[in-house]
Amino acid sequence: MRFATISGRLHQVVSPGRVVDLNSASGGRLPADPQEAYLRWDEVLEFAATGSAQPTEVDEQDFGNPVPTPRQVFAIGLNYSDHAAESNFAVPDHPPVFTKFVTSLTGPFGEIAVPPGHVDWEVELVVVIGRHAHRVAAQDAWSHVAGLTVGQDISERILQSSGPAPQFSLGKSHPGFGPLGPVLVTPDELPDRDDLELGCLVNGEQMQKGRTRDMVFPVSELIARLSAVTPLLPGDVIFTGTPSGVGLGRTPQCWLQAGDELVTYVRGIGEMRHRLVAPAA
Amino acid sequence: MRFATISGRLHQVVSPGRVVDLNSASGGRLPADPQEAYLRWDEVLEFAATGSAQPTEVDEQDFGNPVPTPRQVFAIGLNYSDHAAESNFAVPDHPPVFTKFVTSLTGPFGEIAVPPGHVDWEVELVVVIGRHAHRVAAQDAWSHVAGLTVGQDISERILQSSGPAPQFSLGKSHPGFGPLGPVLVTPDELPDRDDLELGCLVNGEQMQKGRTRDMVFPVSELIARLSAVTPLLPGDVIFTGTPSGVGLGRTPQCWLQAGDELVTYVRGIGEMRHRLVAPAA
Repeated sequence: MRFATISGRLHQVVSPGRVVDLNSASGGRLPADPQEAYLRWDEVLEFAATGSAQPTEVDEQDFGNPVPTPRQVFAIGLNYSDHAAESNFAVPDHPPVFTKFVTSLTGPFGEIAVPPGHVDWEVELVVVIGRHAHRVAAQDAWSHVAGLTVGQDISERILQSSGPAPQFSLGKSHPGFGPLGPVLVTPDELPDRDDLELGCLVNGEQMQKGRTRDMVFPVSELIARLSAVTPLLPGDVIFTGTPSGVGLGRTPQCWLQAGDELVTYVRGIGEMRHRLVAPAA
Repeated sequence: MRFATISGRLHQVVSPGRVVDLNSASGGRLPADPQEAYLRWDEVLEFAATGSAQPTEVDEQDFGNPVPTPRQVFAIGLNYSDHAAESNFAVPDHPPVFTKFVTSLTGPFGEIAVPPGHVDWEVELVVVIGRHAHRVAAQDAWSHVAGLTVGQDISERILQSSGPAPQFSLGKSHPGFGPLGPVLVTPDELPDRDDLELGCLVNGEQMQKGRTRDMVFPVSELIARLSAVTPLLPGDVIFTGTPSGVGLGRTPQCWLQAGDELVTYVRGIGEMRHRLVAPAA
């Protein structure tokens, strides 16, 4: 099943461009707010599976961030060996974990301001938690996932790398640096939830193209390792890392600029499309 | 003025052990939830300043976390030069910024489970935002602060230091690793908001003792640098870093164990008291 946020309300996407408002269709029984819906995800799935409601037509450009206000945002660094190599890091024996502060999150379409610095792209598969997870074994991990969506871990490299103990979080948290969407897809909808093609294009040129089967720590292992320390709450998100092809790793290096068009996709989930713009004065 | 959370409701502390429930006293006009109160902090201050309500007696051991559900938790590494030295890091030219995931936050009194590893103490002054702050100059920064409280940035050093690009966040986010309290104090209440003594004791032995005037980046500068990137929201918290004296920097190194008593204070604000216990099986 596929879900989208429209005007802040969770909708089921029953076919391309046709959606059901779950709060209205359930007579107010299900919450309209997506984050509240993740707290009652089993009920959402049960209702959505009945397929009883009459869909309405919608423009997919109206889809917003399907996870607008998570309590916790986890992000994983260096989770593809080819990207670790292009970043001049060793392949990690433990996943580096940082955050993207929630004010950086935005929807799958629209404009993103480019601050001064070296602003880079990072396509990522993003996991959304649907069931409280604390000390979960890898083999049980997928049962705690509400669904998957597409993310960009946009990164300002100068700030990201500064300081004697560089902490990635702030340099990756300018407003708009965490687009998510356009839809949340339940894992059962995908032919192989552990092997998805992901990529991104800048001005039509393919910059990244990878497969999630090449993750150093696959989704199930990330959930096991994170939840061994920190309870994962329904509606929390995990940015799972990026494959090679970022601007940092190119010769010559190149960065996003105002005017660029950034397209970000995970095959089987969907595609985000953003225009980079100059920051407001 | 001083504020505390009791049973999840924001109270003004009018004198030691005497409090006013702000929601009740305002006839329901002010929110009971502390995080909602920070969104309307000017109204809270205005009402509290009238001092018109009749206080009730309370046991201060009932004070909970004054900032239980912040949207964003910022934490600063290596912000005292003596602590940077004992940690074998250079004094930073930019403050390293990480997060403590919100599931690590807890109140000022009670038990904290000690997971396996090297569990260390870090007394910190904690800033709570009271007014939206984006691109705020250092000289205006204090006007965006609701108040100050005491924090412990409890840290499991093995996980904190692991990986090719160590990210502090996860190793500092076990449940209970972020105690806050016992009260929120408005900056005007303090003789010098930029020079406060802070310290901590383990089993009665003084382990850390420092002064906030020795911060590499003082509170106003931290707010300027964070808000230059990321909007700070009312109710967000900033852990501002720890002075020297942590277990990591001692010869021999020493770590917290089940049975230990940890006392954490900032003079002029208050004192937290925790018992370390074995983790649940």
